[in-house]
Amino acid sequence: MKLIKSEGIAHHSYFIEASGRAIVVDPRRDVDIYLKMAETAGLDITHIFETHRNEDYVIGSLELAQATGAEIFHGKDLEFAYGTPVIEGTTFKFGNAELEILETPGHTPESISLVLRDKSVSDDAHMVFAGDLIFAGETGRIDLLGEDKKRKMAGLLYDSIFHKIMPLGDKTILCPAHGAGSVCGADIREQDYTTLGYEKNTNLQLQCTSRDEFIQMKVAEELYTPPYFRKMEFFNQNGAPLLGRLPYLRALTPKILKKMKNNGAQIVDVRQPTSFGGAHLPGSLNIWRDGVPAFAGWFLNYQDPIILIDDQDHNLDEIRQALVRLGFDNIYGYLAGGFPNWYLHAEKIETLKLWSVQQLKENLKNDFFLLDGRMIDDRQEGYIEGSHHIYTGEVPVRISEIPRDQSVVVYCDSGFKSTLICSYLRGEGFTDLTSVLGSMTAWKQAGYPVVTD
Amino acid sequence: MKLIKSEGIAHHSYFIEASGRAIVVDPRRDVDIYLKMAETAGLDITHIFETHRNEDYVIGSLELAQATGAEIFHGKDLEFAYGTPVIEGTTFKFGNAELEILETPGHTPESISLVLRDKSVSDDAHMVFAGDLIFAGETGRIDLLGEDKKRKMAGLLYDSIFHKIMPLGDKTILCPAHGAGSVCGADIREQDYTTLGYEKNTNLQLQCTSRDEFIQMKVAEELYTPPYFRKMEFFNQNGAPLLGRLPYLRALTPKILKKMKNNGAQIVDVRQPTSFGGAHLPGSLNIWRDGVPAFAGWFLNYQDPIILIDDQDHNLDEIRQALVRLGFDNIYGYLAGGFPNWYLHAEKIETLKLWSVQQLKENLKNDFFLLDGRMIDDRQEGYIEGSHHIYTGEVPVRISEIPRDQSVVVYCDSGFKSTLICSYLRGEGFTDLTSVLGSMTAWKQAGYPVVTD
Amino acid sequence: MKLIKSEGIAHHSYFIEASGRAIVVDPRRDVDIYLKMAETAGLDITHIFETHRNEDYVIGSLELAQATGAEIFHGKDLEFAYGTPVIEGTTFKFGNAELEILETPGHTPESISLVLRDKSVSDDAHMVFAGDLIFAGETGRIDLLGEDKKRKMAGLLYDSIFHKIMPLGDKTILCPAHGAGSVCGADIREQDYTTLGYEKNTNLQLQCTSRDEFIQMKVAEELYTPPYFRKMEFFNQNGAPLLGRLPYLRALTPKILKKMKNNGAQIVDVRQPTSFGGAHLPGSLNIWRDGVPAFAGWFLNYQDPIILIDDQDHNLDEIRQALVRLGFDNIYGYLAGGFPNWYLHAEKIETLKLWSVQQLKENLKNDFFLLDGRMIDDRQEGYIEGSHHIYTGEVPVRISEIPRDQSVVVYCDSGFKSTLICSYLRGEGFTDLTSVLGSMTAWKQAGYPVVTD
Amino acid sequence: MKLIKSEGIAHHSYFIEASGRAIVVDPRRDVDIYLKMAETAGLDITHIFETHRNEDYVIGSLELAQATGAEIFHGKDLEFAYGTPVIEGTTFKFGNAELEILETPGHTPESISLVLRDKSVSDDAHMVFAGDLIFAGETGRIDLLGEDKKRKMAGLLYDSIFHKIMPLGDKTILCPAHGAGSVCGADIREQDYTTLGYEKNTNLQLQCTSRDEFIQMKVAEELYTPPYFRKMEFFNQNGAPLLGRLPYLRALTPKILKKMKNNGAQIVDVRQPTSFGGAHLPGSLNIWRDGVPAFAGWFLNYQDPIILIDDQDHNLDEIRQALVRLGFDNIYGYLAGGFPNWYLHAEKIETLKLWSVQQLKENLKNDFFLLDGRMIDDRQEGYIEGSHHIYTGEVPVRISEIPRDQSVVVYCDSGFKSTLICSYLRGEGFTDLTSVLGSMTAWKQAGYPVVTD
Repeated sequence: MKLIKSEGIAHHSYFIEASGRAIVVDPRRDVDIYLKMAETAGLDITHIFETHRNEDYVIGSLELAQATGAEIFHGKDLEFAYGTPVIEGTTFKFGNAELEILETPGHTPESISLVLRDKSVSDDAHMVFAGDLIFAGETGRIDLLGEDKKRKMAGLLYDSIFHKIMPLGDKTILCPAHGAGSVCGADIREQDYTTLGYEKNTNLQLQCTSRDEFIQMKVAEELYTPPYFRKMEFFNQNGAPLLGRLPYLRALTPKILKKMKNNGAQIVDVRQPTSFGGAHLPGSLNIWRDGVPAFAGWFLNYQDPIILIDDQDHNLDEIRQALVRLGFDNIYGYLAGGFPNWYLHAEKIETLKLWSVQQLKENLKNDFFLLDGRMIDDRQEGYIEGSHHIYTGEVPVRISEIPRDQSVVVYCDSGFKSTLICSYLRGEGFTDLTSVLGSMTAWKQAGYPVVTD
Repeated sequence: MKLIKSEGIAHHSYFIEASGRAIVVDPRRDVDIYLKMAETAGLDITHIFETHRNEDYVIGSLELAQATGAEIFHGKDLEFAYGTPVIEGTTFKFGNAELEILETPGHTPESISLVLRDKSVSDDAHMVFAGDLIFAGETGRIDLLGEDKKRKMAGLLYDSIFHKIMPLGDKTILCPAHGAGSVCGADIREQDYTTLGYEKNTNLQLQCTSRDEFIQMKVAEELYTPPYFRKMEFFNQNGAPLLGRLPYLRALTPKILKKMKNNGAQIVDVRQPTSFGGAHLPGSLNIWRDGVPAFAGWFLNYQDPIILIDDQDHNLDEIRQALVRLGFDNIYGYLAGGFPNWYLHAEKIETLKLWSVQQLKENLKNDFFLLDGRMIDDRQEGYIEGSHHIYTGEVPVRISEIPRDQSVVVYCDSGFKSTLICSYLRGEGFTDLTSVLGSMTAWKQAGYPVVTD
Repeated sequence: MKLIKSEGIAHHSYFIEASGRAIVVDPRRDVDIYLKMAETAGLDITHIFETHRNEDYVIGSLELAQATGAEIFHGKDLEFAYGTPVIEGTTFKFGNAELEILETPGHTPESISLVLRDKSVSDDAHMVFAGDLIFAGETGRIDLLGEDKKRKMAGLLYDSIFHKIMPLGDKTILCPAHGAGSVCGADIREQDYTTLGYEKNTNLQLQCTSRDEFIQMKVAEELYTPPYFRKMEFFNQNGAPLLGRLPYLRALTPKILKKMKNNGAQIVDVRQPTSFGGAHLPGSLNIWRDGVPAFAGWFLNYQDPIILIDDQDHNLDEIRQALVRLGFDNIYGYLAGGFPNWYLHAEKIETLKLWSVQQLKENLKNDFFLLDGRMIDDRQEGYIEGSHHIYTGEVPVRISEIPRDQSVVVYCDSGFKSTLICSYLRGEGFTDLTSVLGSMTAWKQAGYPVVTD
Repeated sequence: MKLIKSEGIAHHSYFIEASGRAIVVDPRRDVDIYLKMAETAGLDITHIFETHRNEDYVIGSLELAQATGAEIFHGKDLEFAYGTPVIEGTTFKFGNAELEILETPGHTPESISLVLRDKSVSDDAHMVFAGDLIFAGETGRIDLLGEDKKRKMAGLLYDSIFHKIMPLGDKTILCPAHGAGSVCGADIREQDYTTLGYEKNTNLQLQCTSRDEFIQMKVAEELYTPPYFRKMEFFNQNGAPLLGRLPYLRALTPKILKKMKNNGAQIVDVRQPTSFGGAHLPGSLNIWRDGVPAFAGWFLNYQDPIILIDDQDHNLDEIRQALVRLGFDNIYGYLAGGFPNWYLHAEKIETLKLWSVQQLKENLKNDFFLLDGRMIDDRQEGYIEGSHHIYTGEVPVRISEIPRDQSVVVYCDSGFKSTLICSYLRGEGFTDLTSVLGSMTAWKQAGYPVVTD
């Protein structure tokens, strides 16, 4: 078994070798990695399993099936436009290896888990691929079908975990579909490998003493749902467009970029807050490189061409992959020569005020609107007195809550999301904006006071 | 300017950077290398030039144009189904760089050459991209339009070389479309870089004292025309199928391979003669790894699936590329685990007798049919007494000249082509076959006698 | 935690990230992979742990320490010439991560295990790095200190496993120092990841009902000890020479190779049995590519230069790595151009008879000495009637048991080791040798009879 | 022949294949690329030629000789501590290939050129490796031996070029030791490949009508000599320390970095001006990534550890290589996590004022000291009225010319060197500093006025 991690979305897919063939669980859309692994190992990819209809990325099953001729399988309780439904207890035998299907609804109605056994060794479950049912230190979201279904889904999740998965035994290795940083779990631990026994003992959500307590806890969870989830759900139920080769990114001159911007192109500056603060192209949105997987889906649309700006035009691969995984096939190009090429052409630049936490502290007495762009969970653990809270991703829909006639100072965890917010607000016409470098992390490091409700 | 060499077919394409954009001359079909170069350098590929309708490989212009949006240009004297014709004297200006079109028929009627100048330096020609007109130590073939057009084409070639290219001056760097080993020139030198002056002095074909002498020399040339040339010409005039991602190769079990073979699959053993001699799958064709670009087009068809056998199943990339460049999109898979997997399954194997040149020498007195599979040019320089000559590629159409009631011993230059011939003849029912390791190269090393006509 | 597998010796080392630093467990000697991982992840390697003095490869601790400045730790019950001894219960804290030392003698007296905990999660053991104490499906060898210490070591092994490791709990992930194919365990399973609970249930050696039964079982085990183990033990106790850059391999002409051979160079032909059978350089030893890690230590010495022959001279990296890991710094070069370059120079070649299992079957009635070169365990499961058993590695010391006046036919599991034996015997003057392709694997596939004692 | 470019120092070395062996001309110190090329091509590196004692980088001859056993050759007119002197007319024959030595003093007294001929083709010179004698569009520096030797060296240079090199003929390909961007020529063109004929026509320096005119022109040239040249000359005459593996870079926490800085470590911020302007570590020197090869030698010493800061800690390779090529083996580590890790720890940050050219224009009427940090040649082509000129590299020795009681605004070509100057001055206690983004390039783009003397 090999774990393939897709950074940013913290997606875990798995490549399983079994008796001369390969099985892929939850492939990503840029499937070359699986093809390469198969050819290197001399294996034929014949089976693709989807643990559930994913909502946070475009699944690569069709892409991989088209390349290899493999068959796609998923749960039966959703109408997929492709693939073959499987049901509880179905087993796939590959020589000594066996994959057993468990229906494990909860995160979604059609979620399945796969139990891997080596029958030449024993009938014990060696590993379980549990999708978004349970993670290292977390359990799956139950809110995606809407508020009214939350109780029901939480109950299903409980039953799936406690009556299907945990009975496989402490010793079984748990292979979930996400790692730390995913939006599919509030607080997944940074452990690539865990076991059911380790989770039983340590996963706080599994410490509930009753089904009802578990349901109550899950229903109370507040998790964000980026708008692009709808697109992913549509793609993953009906089949996303086939890619073939990943899109080529065009090198654009400042002149062409300017023209395209005037025609509606989305300009995404992937540099760091300090670079963006130092100087940037007016009207560009600052989503730092590593933030693209998490925030593209909140701020970008699927129609207008996406154009990237970086310090230099190297290493576009990871951003291209990040966008393609989210279905942003409207990625178009990048500013050739990087941002310097913009100012070398004497094009108009703007700056953004950046404060250290020391400066924020000193200025607190002054009059400004202090905006906290962190997640609600982080907010609840403590915030800077006087700050107003809007999660970064929700700024577009709650923009009316932010005063236009006042200085706006933004902080978040680190200064990255706050700069993103400032860049967004600037594009919406706000003019007096400041982002706080280091934000709450540095604030606490400096020993400054936080308050809680 | 960067030279991109496609080994095997010894094809040279060029990536030219000019004022922030990139121009590609004669791209190959697996275009990822150009896309990568463009993105690494921060350049946009905007122009693709075809020096002529190629006959020895599938040109990648459409593939590259589809990926990048670049425009394709070629000569006007052929009806292409795509691209834009250009005429003598047309110049493309990219900042200080300038590309001038010269119509240089001879190899084909519509052949063009591109003269690169840096106008910021001078009006002198810096480089010339001359396609198949002139190579290091050679000039282009003039036989592709048929016997009756040879004189005319040779005259055109003379005029193009002497009245269009050489006048650019001794100092001009010559960038031809092929290097040593290409079938597009009898004896191209192993020099990636040469100049018009160096060729003027050293290229034997340019030493002719008159146009007539040149024509006579060219008309007398004997060059082989593999059957796949027709397919390439059709593709390159009408547009080859788009590839996207290169084909995935399936790992096949001996059982599946056997079944496919029975249904007509072409089994290509890419191992060395010694391996093939040691043991092989009955009915497989032995085209050693590096021989695939040169001999696939003589021995394989475009319909039946192609299945590869190697010692191990690593490094399929270069064979896949070689086949795709020749349009063999019917490449299908390979024997998983390599050839050992065949005999480990106790499947039937055969061996092929291999002789050293010492053994050949000792056995010469015995009665057998000694076949010389080399090119006619090499034959003419000397051969082993008593041998019969059929060029390797022509064995299929001249098979009736080889006796079935006699031992057949085959030699070539090195033992690779002779083993290919043996493997082919074995498939055609011949049973008493021997290939000579080292062949003429070793024969001469050993100081054994050769005769000439 | 990242597992770094060294193929061939099936060595598992581990790279553990903990609070901004990196810890390496049992590094291999070609340490660039760890340096690269550290720089890619932005971590400083500060601690190196050796679970025990290894005997099957040169440990890279000194090499890695010299490059990074990291400190080396190992068990206290052996006099190491370098590093710092640690004792039972010592804990290393790296932020929330904690590594606890367990003294776990048995395989060697000074063996230690490392227990990894994430204290921010719980006090539970998350993983245990147990060296050669216990593997997937196996337990460690106890024979390395000699026959007389076997009982004692087996008892220690039992105590370490049952009183130190298993009490960590079923849920704990087991990270052993070897995977399938290692000589450090008779029959390790092909599972990179396992748990204590999974082993408790499935590992046959753990099913013993008493300490005595366990000791008896271990003492009865027959495992091979290649001669190079002594060298490794010396290196790993006293410190192996520092490498810096891996040795460069010289491209040698046939002429130079021949001269060096005459002066005692060891010529290793890494091609497959079929290639070697087809033709080879007289006096060369055939250790096929993937067999180098396992058999170099049985057949090569540490003084005379080692020269490689392959089909082509590509991909020398894995053989260089394999030899360097075993301390063969006397690796010198390779035949430029591969084996064909030998026969193209008309140098003398020899062939080796290869039989299919069908041929072996047909010939069984004839008179020859049939040699079985497999491991004793495999032999005991059944062999071909009339065959004599000498394990491949032991052929040099038991060569007198093989008759020189008779045909010798050799088989093993697959035909690779049997060809190695033939090549060795040929060098020792035997002349009538045959190797059986497919050997026992194919023999069984064909449904031919095997006998047992 | 393969050209190996070392970016930044624009160094060109050459790998020449000749009859089964490889020859390297002017190897760089990180020699792995040559070793890899040799092994990939199946060639043995046997000869290393140094065209002259280089002054701008550490030559890798000893490093490469130690790895391969190759012999080193250089000119006779300098006492080298290693290698073999060669003299005019010596020829090295490698099969058909021949390298002839020409003594071509001028840049240095012992400079040699190598003429490559393919004797199987003709006696014509195919290529000439001319070191620092003549470049595309330039000729070599003659000032390195001091003011008093300039006339003499210029005369020698003239003689070498016109009486040794040019007679090789227009057609000969020129392979110089540097490309565009090198400090070894004022204005080398961006052409990797040129010919003697092309240079004869287009190289302005070759248009002099007499030896005297040439000498006068060369003597009048003003070129900068960075202080590290002395170190390189010493190393390249006496032999630089052997490297083996390239130095590992330690990941440092902010705390350790701070401590090392207090103990004298050199902190080099390799980010872009906009990032540095946005926020930076007080006391760090800003040499942007691509500026390291050119400016490390002006601003860094060879004793104190060098610590890097980047936006993120990826891709340290090219900076490590750049520093190692200049002999800065005191490179030590980098800020783990990149610059954000600094402000996330609430460490003190500073900002630097950045102006657009528009802002500079608007503010010109105000009182400040406007510093022009460009090369003298660029200055002479026009500057902003009222500016004072000190070349970036000379700022440390001419710092007293810059007023400490006034605002200092710095411009250069693009804004990179000006930010470097500001960072340096800040470390020297200057407080009111501004760097102009885009600088003269943008200034001209904007159509603003320049004056000339």
